[in-house]
Parts: sequence; structure tokens; C-alpha cells
Amino acid sequence: MTALSFDLLNTDGRARRGRLTTAHGTVETPTFMAVGTAATVKAMTMDAVRATGTQIVLGNTYHLMLRPSAERIAKLGGLHKFMLWPGPILTDSGGFQVMSLSKLRKITEKGVTFRSHIDGAAYELNPERSTEIQHLLDATITMAFDECPKLPADKALIEKSMELSMRWATRSRAAFKARPGYGQFGIVQGGTEIDLRLRSAAALTQIGFEGYAVGGLAVGEPQEQMFAVLDETVPALPADKPHYLMGVGTPEDIIGAVERGIDMFDCVLPTRSGRTAQAFTSRGTINLRNARHQDDHRPLDEECACPALAGVTRAYLHHLIRCEEILGPMLLTWHNIYFYQNLMRRLRGAIEQGRFVDEAATLRAELARGDIAPL
Amino acid sequence: MTALSFDLLNTDGRARRGRLTTAHGTVETPTFMAVGTAATVKAMTMDAVRATGTQIVLGNTYHLMLRPSAERIAKLGGLHKFMLWPGPILTDSGGFQVMSLSKLRKITEKGVTFRSHIDGAAYELNPERSTEIQHLLDATITMAFDECPKLPADKALIEKSMELSMRWATRSRAAFKARPGYGQFGIVQGGTEIDLRLRSAAALTQIGFEGYAVGGLAVGEPQEQMFAVLDETVPALPADKPHYLMGVGTPEDIIGAVERGIDMFDCVLPTRSGRTAQAFTSRGTINLRNARHQDDHRPLDEECACPALAGVTRAYLHHLIRCEEILGPMLLTWHNIYFYQNLMRRLRGAIEQGRFVDEAATLRAELARGDIAPL
Repeated sequence: MTALSFDLLNTDGRARRGRLTTAHGTVETPTFMAVGTAATVKAMTMDAVRATGTQIVLGNTYHLMLRPSAERIAKLGGLHKFMLWPGPILTDSGGFQVMSLSKLRKITEKGVTFRSHIDGAAYELNPERSTEIQHLLDATITMAFDECPKLPADKALIEKSMELSMRWATRSRAAFKARPGYGQFGIVQGGTEIDLRLRSAAALTQIGFEGYAVGGLAVGEPQEQMFAVLDETVPALPADKPHYLMGVGTPEDIIGAVERGIDMFDCVLPTRSGRTAQAFTSRGTINLRNARHQDDHRPLDEECACPALAGVTRAYLHHLIRCEEILGPMLLTWHNIYFYQNLMRRLRGAIEQGRFVDEAATLRAELARGDIAPL
Repeated sequence: MTALSFDLLNTDGRARRGRLTTAHGTVETPTFMAVGTAATVKAMTMDAVRATGTQIVLGNTYHLMLRPSAERIAKLGGLHKFMLWPGPILTDSGGFQVMSLSKLRKITEKGVTFRSHIDGAAYELNPERSTEIQHLLDATITMAFDECPKLPADKALIEKSMELSMRWATRSRAAFKARPGYGQFGIVQGGTEIDLRLRSAAALTQIGFEGYAVGGLAVGEPQEQMFAVLDETVPALPADKPHYLMGVGTPEDIIGAVERGIDMFDCVLPTRSGRTAQAFTSRGTINLRNARHQDDHRPLDEECACPALAGVTRAYLHHLIRCEEILGPMLLTWHNIYFYQNLMRRLRGAIEQGRFVDEAATLRAELARGDIAPL
């Protein structure tokens, strides 16, 4: 029985070009996982998701356990079939959403009890149940169940929380049912305290997972603080396993994290921005609600080959947004995910060709140019 | 200079199989026009609209004059380019929406003044301005500007309104700028009063249009009353021109109207229903919000080849709707438009083969079967 495998194809500085081989297909890394919270990448058909070059999608244990429930999805043949995504799926463990979304939560050694943010119903989540839910969903990659303390916090509190997460990681691993081409990732915690991060990385390596995630970052701290944590933490992770930076981030965050040895990303930014008129372009982000676009016959981004926006003017996008037409979020989300996947393609190509530093500088300069002048 | 042309290919009873040849392509009739109110068929990409077999799309003068404005669309190259629909577009004149949507309207011989339902701004609409707006939009088919009285109403009031609409039709025709492959349709009014309908049809024929619409129906009257009006009105329309029944309707309405010689339809039903969990199927309409679907692994309609729902279960549709995910309206709208276009394909095929009566009976029997039994 062989778990999912990771091949490190080449490196360029600390940046890594790899390939994940799973029961549901291969993933070229560095990769961006489109967020499919409630069994849908919001405002996109799965055909459109595929057309952006997305290779792996993320699902949320917390949302799916509430609606429609893991048992229901299992009876319906698993999440791949349910949401029409036959490719790899990573599910998070629910730990983060319990902290950020649920009401009246109570944390004990055993796990968490909380009330649903939807209807107030009581639920329990713990390492065993989270792992079971992810198994029921048929997740290609299962995440260990962890506690995510709110930052900033006292070091003592972060330490206590990290230690709890490590005990939960052991229990998560014990609860995980290995299957060929499937795997489970542990999650490094420890806030911005380097010594705690290193202890956490060591504890997880000791347990042994198919991949290692860095959690608890991009929760409001400055980018340089996040990068400082990665500078110290990523080298402490097993080099022959994939490294996943959870919930990150902006294009600039991703470039900097790839530079520091991260292989996998997920973030709601491209999808959420698509629903709030924000477009990612090769000249930075643009707010299409702005009246400067209302007569603009030009494309959103002349340097983008996104099929969603072929022939679409800024004026049309602005019109759709002003009229609150569903097509606005549909087109912008599609474009944003395409933009992210194109960024990943460029980063992968640069690592392959040993020119990552140059490409990163080029990308940063492009993104900093600012939008074209108004008409 | 030749206007758009209509070829009557064959008839079967009163049902007609025709072809409309326009500056923007051909339309096989009987046809269903997808409603693209504000320069978008709500919740659909134009690629998806095309994939349903839709050949002509409807735009709304009222909505587009408010946002983004006809002048702006003209500057941007016209509605076809703006909304990425190079095919034929019919625009309604705004008369109906002024009555149903706007505030503080005042009708005089000259036209209508009203306040926008969006921001209360004052506007004027009259035969000349409505025709100009539709010209600015570059509508393939321009509709005459009419008054649509609320029904039921006194015959005297309906008569006065119809006569005003006929004077406005004369002015609309005078304002219309003929171009090769373009055309303008007059609109028969007269409520459910047959003598008024016949006078209206005669008046419009006297003016002379490229097509004739029946307006002011499907506004709440029983189906048999609508059919009774069509029984008398359609034979009074020029047989060599297309006949368009405005704002109709259910699949059963359309079957009965094709039977009575109608060639063109438009209705918000398939699109609006797609946003309210209603699906049209070969067994009638189904409400996917109903909990009976939550564990149902079966397709929405086993007899439908709709590409939008290939592999999609009722359980998934139910889940998307319960979670208010945008993908729910996206998939259901696509399916519903596909269902309508498939209905039109079947009706066209039946007329071609001289078996309209049988096909209509088969379709009605199918629609009356009711949904499959719950699991």
C-alpha cells in the first residue's frame, strides 16, 4: 500500500519544482488549490475551474459536516463525485473554521464542542471525528486536526496551543486510514515564535506524514513576519515531502513563499475578490466598481489570456457589477483563478529553468506598475 | 436596402416552421428568445447561452436606458459587442417595464415620463426616443413603443389605450431607420377584447412592419382566454411575417401558441425559475429546495441531455440551493434554458414532419406525468 508520493523534480535556491502523484491524478508544484468550501468553487462550474489549469481543489470539513453532512456525501459516493471534481481534493480539518466561524465553542483535551454558525445546532469535532469526516468525504489529502489560536497572543498561550495541536496530530495520524494514493498532512503551529515552530516541525516529523503544512500564518501579521517564520520553519520540514502554506495569500505572498520552499497554497482571495469587484491583474489589483471604468472599452488585462474575459471590456464588467448581475462574480472569479494559476505556471517554469530569482523580480515589478491610465 | 426576411418553410395546421434571416444570423422558428434584460442572460455566460441552442436574445430598453445608458452602449460598439452576443438581438420598447417597474409615471399623447425604480431619476420615453434607443443599442429587431394597460380593465379604457398605442406605432415606424437585415415589429394590443385586437392588427398591418407581436397577454388571465385571443388575432396578422407572442410563457403556453401560429417567444420563466430553485423537466416543474431531494443520487431529468447537469445529482442541486451557492442558479438557469430550447427543437421537428398534433399531445402528456417517486 503506497501513499501519495512527492517527487522533487528540481530546485532553484530554496524554490522547489515538484510533482504530487495521487489516487486522483498528479499535481505539478508549486500549486495553487482553488477553494471549494461548500463543495463548489463559488460562482464557477467545475469545467471552468479545470480550464484555469487548477489541478487540486480544497474542501472544508467544517462547512461540509454542517451541510450536507459527511455521511450524506459518503452515501452519494464521496466529494469527488458529489461536486464533479474527479481530480485531487485536499480537505482542511475544520480546526480553523471552528475558531473563526462557529459560536460558543469549548476546547478540551478531547476536542472542540461548538454551535453551528448557521442554525446554532451543537457539534463535536476532535482529531478522530475530523479524520473520519475527511475519510467519509474521500479526501485525497486529509489534514490533521489542530487548534488555531488567535494572534497576537502570549507566547505561553501559543506554546500550550501548539502542544495540544501536536497531541492532536498524533491522534489524527492514528485515526487516519492509509489507502494507496491518499495521504495525510500534519500542521506546524507556534505563531511567530521560531522556537515553537521548530519544536512543532520536529514533533510532526517524528509522527511522520505524507506532507507538512504551515498553519496559523496570514492571520493579520505583516508579510515580513510571515516570511521570517518561513525562513526558519521550512528548512526544518522533511525535504522529500510537500510543504503547504495554509490560507496564503496575495500574489506577492505566494512568490515570497515559493522562494522559501513552499509547494502548495490555498486562499479565498481570488474567489472572494471575484464577488467584491476586485480583479487581479498583471498590474496589481483593480476595483471594477470604480466609475473610471464605465466607458472603458479596453480589456481588464491586456497581458492576460484568460478565456473568461476574451472580448469583455472593463465597461461591461463595471456594468455587471453595478447592476449586481451574477455574471459579474462569475467572470471575475474565473479570471482571478486563471490569474493565480498563470502565476503558478510562471513560477514553475522559472524554477525548471533555474531563473526563479529573475522571474520573481519581474513578477514583483509587473505587479507594482499600477493600472493603465484612465481613458 | 432589404430588411430582415422571414421564410415560411412549411405549415402543419396553423403551426408554422419558418426562418428569420437577419444582419446578425438566422433564426429557426418557432424560437424561444432567452431574456437578457440588462445585457446579460442572468447567471449564464454567453457561451453557455449559445450551447443551449439559443439563436436570438432579448434586451430591455427600459433597463439599458437606465444602466449603462443607450449612448454609452453605442459608444462601446453596440449591444452585440457589449454583451458578447454577435447573433440576433430583439429589444423591447420599454413600454411594458415603464408600467410594471417605474415609479410616478405620467402618460400623455406625447409619451411617458417616469422615475427610475433604481434611483428615482426622471426620464422620458416616447415612440421616437424608444426607437432611437433601440437604434443606439443596434437591435436587430426593434419593437414599436406601446402602452400596456393593467388587466382587467374597462373595455373603454382598453380601447383608448389601444388607440394610443396605434398612434404611437405610426410614430415608432416613422422614427425607425431601416437598415439591411434589421427590422421593426408592431405590437397588437386590445386586452381580451377580440374586436379591439382585430382593429389593432388591421391598423398595424396598414402601417406595415417586418413582424407582428401580440402584447398585453400572459398578464394574469387564464390560459384559455389567452388562447381564445390568439385563435382570433393570429389569423388577422400578415401570414408572410413572423408572429411574436410577448412574455409567454410556460411550456404548455408555448405549445398551445405554436399550435395557433406563433413563431417567436420570450419569457423570464426559465431564467427567473433558475434563481428560485424551480427546474423545468420532462415531467413538469420540480422545486429542488424540497428536502425530498437531499439524498437523491439521481439526475434531475433522465430524459434531458442538458450538458450543464451531466453527472449532477438532485442531492447536489439541493445542497447548492440550501447553501445559497451561486452555482445553483448557474446550473438551473442553464438547464432551464436548455429545456426550453429542446422543447422548441421538438416543436420545429414535428412541424417539419407534419406531426405537430401528435407531438403536442405527447409533450403535454409527458409534462403532466409528475415527478418520479421519491427514493
